[in-house]
Amino acid sequence: MKAEILSIGTELLRGEVDDTNATYLAAQLSLAGIEVCWVTVVDDDLEKLTEAFQRAIARSDIVLATGGLGPTADDLTREAIARVMGEEPQICEALEQQLRSLFQSIGWAMPSHNLKQATLIPSAQPIPNPRGTAPGWWVEKEGKTIVAMPGPPREMQPMWQNEVMPRLCQRTQETVILSRTLKTFGLSEAAVDEMVGPVFLLSNPGLGIYAKTDGIHLRLVARAGSREEAERFIKDAEDKLRHILTGYIWGTDDDTLENVVAKLLIDKGLTVATMESCTGGLLATTLTDVPGSSACFKGGFVPYSNEAKIALGVDADLIQRHGAVSAQVAEAMAQAARQQLRADIGIGSTGVAGPDALEGKPPGLVYIAVADSQGVESVKANYPPGRIEVKRRATTHALFLLRQRLMSRMVEKRRTESS
Amino acid sequence: MKAEILSIGTELLRGEVDDTNATYLAAQLSLAGIEVCWVTVVDDDLEKLTEAFQRAIARSDIVLATGGLGPTADDLTREAIARVMGEEPQICEALEQQLRSLFQSIGWAMPSHNLKQATLIPSAQPIPNPRGTAPGWWVEKEGKTIVAMPGPPREMQPMWQNEVMPRLCQRTQETVILSRTLKTFGLSEAAVDEMVGPVFLLSNPGLGIYAKTDGIHLRLVARAGSREEAERFIKDAEDKLRHILTGYIWGTDDDTLENVVAKLLIDKGLTVATMESCTGGLLATTLTDVPGSSACFKGGFVPYSNEAKIALGVDADLIQRHGAVSAQVAEAMAQAARQQLRADIGIGSTGVAGPDALEGKPPGLVYIAVADSQGVESVKANYPPGRIEVKRRATTHALFLLRQRLMSRMVEKRRTESS
Repeated sequence: MKAEILSIGTELLRGEVDDTNATYLAAQLSLAGIEVCWVTVVDDDLEKLTEAFQRAIARSDIVLATGGLGPTADDLTREAIARVMGEEPQICEALEQQLRSLFQSIGWAMPSHNLKQATLIPSAQPIPNPRGTAPGWWVEKEGKTIVAMPGPPREMQPMWQNEVMPRLCQRTQETVILSRTLKTFGLSEAAVDEMVGPVFLLSNPGLGIYAKTDGIHLRLVARAGSREEAERFIKDAEDKLRHILTGYIWGTDDDTLENVVAKLLIDKGLTVATMESCTGGLLATTLTDVPGSSACFKGGFVPYSNEAKIALGVDADLIQRHGAVSAQVAEAMAQAARQQLRADIGIGSTGVAGPDALEGKPPGLVYIAVADSQGVESVKANYPPGRIEVKRRATTHALFLLRQRLMSRMVEKRRTESS
Repeated sequence: MKAEILSIGTELLRGEVDDTNATYLAAQLSLAGIEVCWVTVVDDDLEKLTEAFQRAIARSDIVLATGGLGPTADDLTREAIARVMGEEPQICEALEQQLRSLFQSIGWAMPSHNLKQATLIPSAQPIPNPRGTAPGWWVEKEGKTIVAMPGPPREMQPMWQNEVMPRLCQRTQETVILSRTLKTFGLSEAAVDEMVGPVFLLSNPGLGIYAKTDGIHLRLVARAGSREEAERFIKDAEDKLRHILTGYIWGTDDDTLENVVAKLLIDKGLTVATMESCTGGLLATTLTDVPGSSACFKGGFVPYSNEAKIALGVDADLIQRHGAVSAQVAEAMAQAARQQLRADIGIGSTGVAGPDALEGKPPGLVYIAVADSQGVESVKANYPPGRIEVKRRATTHALFLLRQRLMSRMVEKRRTESS
């Protein structure tokens, strides 16, 4: 089964955004054992769209299109598919009703332009879009399938996961493809590459190494005639990798560091509080991205001046003696966060996000501290400069340290009653 | 002059990497006034490559290819171009000599496979590649141009900047292309579309409407024979749009809402402090993404429980009577943030990020308050559900309200000395 991806939108041809939808879909299709033969980026132009859809259904079995389903005059995906199929788009009353209810629920009057998002052609079935106003189209005719999905990834990805992929997977029972991603922190891509050399030479499962924002990921992909066989291939290779990378692996597959940490905290019945200077709230917002995090996150402080740090319980004398960017102040911040919000664990971060130096210290220098009932520890790190990047790396590092602390020793529950 | 981009490499069709080369080249070509009509991702396969190059030179004037110039058997870009041109690749002695010197300089023996990187066809000139072993190919024949560059961005980008772009720019003196983006908040894409209908009908400048995470963007693109003429086209259309969209436009081109707000605060010598519940620190980290934000951002609080809100100065009775998710508590949080950190302006956010309801209130319900010397005001908003999305929208909304406050009336500087 051959698939083809059409990414639709003038903004892609102007280089305004990366075509991440094509990457996402290509990876997903590969996993499902469906070969992607072409990716084409197409303008919001009816002639070009028609040409692209025509060529795509001539040479591929499945065409996956993203974009061009919005309400405006330059959203022409529906029109192009209708043309290629030789059918006429008509308003579907059920879709119109859904759309009107959606607008009503958020208290807006529906602009008349949105009506075109309620159209269908006879060969098309609507695909629900709980995240937006544009339903997808599932078109089948003469053995060919066209699936049109909205362009925004936050709408497209759930539609793909919940609606499109399950239907496509029913068609591809012959070969089983399984993948497994191991996520590490604390090693460079080259170091991982050197360490896992022997596993890398295997062709099944194949191994890919990717530098991501939360560390180095290792991805195993196994192909086999049965699920059991594929699972065995993966398990054998994963065991080898876990042996080689002990202490660096923090999660697998869809895990995020914040989810892993929140789960550990909740499982252990522990709470955390943060006091951030250089990370500026990124640690707090990352933790609160986790649904249900209010069970383990007591709250956070972002004292962005020495005055604010002192008001929150950091000893003025410490700042005076060591500077605000120091291990001592990071530790005092972790302890103050823990104290102020009566949390079991406190985390403190202080550093130089840049672009300018601070207290004669260079951008990228960061101290991170973790405090609990057994005391406080801090680490010093030097990240490559870049304000956003420094904030991000320090946040990932803080979460990794918190995970290590939770894994390595028993953190005692705070006795708030008696404190 | 029409250009087309071919991105070559199986890894792109497997979704292992984003096609950032296409984005980069598309943006560069747009700036140079060259229209990109198609981007196609092609497999490392001689048949498919030949098909892609043939179609590309048939419908475009310039074809820019990246990838497939390596030394291995699956690098077939040179072979495909030779086929399409009906010519035979032969080893160029000067290139072979350069390649051998390169290997000698790093103390390696040249593998025989690398020899194919020293081949040319009669229509091709080599393009120097100081960063790698693969020279590019500049092919001209019968009025068409094919430029083949290596795939790694660190080799491709300098080759583009130093060799390819200067040669292409010599050809395009006639047309000047200028663009201008206006960024709005508070309107739906369809509403903007309806309002700006008359401007949308103009063909020069053309208007594109894009839904972005920080609101709806309107992008004008003008083409003209001179820079002055293009600037006049843009200015006339921009004036019309600004008249229609008064009160909704917060920035242009590279502006971000946080940069706009930080600049306004710094220019007015004012400071801000935040107290966030549902946004969980996202507002603080967004503000601190701005270099130099410590001059206007005093700090923030993320009280993620009622207990923490009360400890920070929110009246327990208010929470009792109205619930933590209420206009009254948002206003009290804004005032407490202002008070605690002695800032000129305080912002409070409280709401239901989801996925679960809270106090019987639905996910997506958010109250945002802004407090200053003249009092406090709050708004109630209902965003579509989705935890991360609700946090993001509420943060954008808070920044927009702060901007409105700073624009619409004189905020008095706090007299910290006497308070």
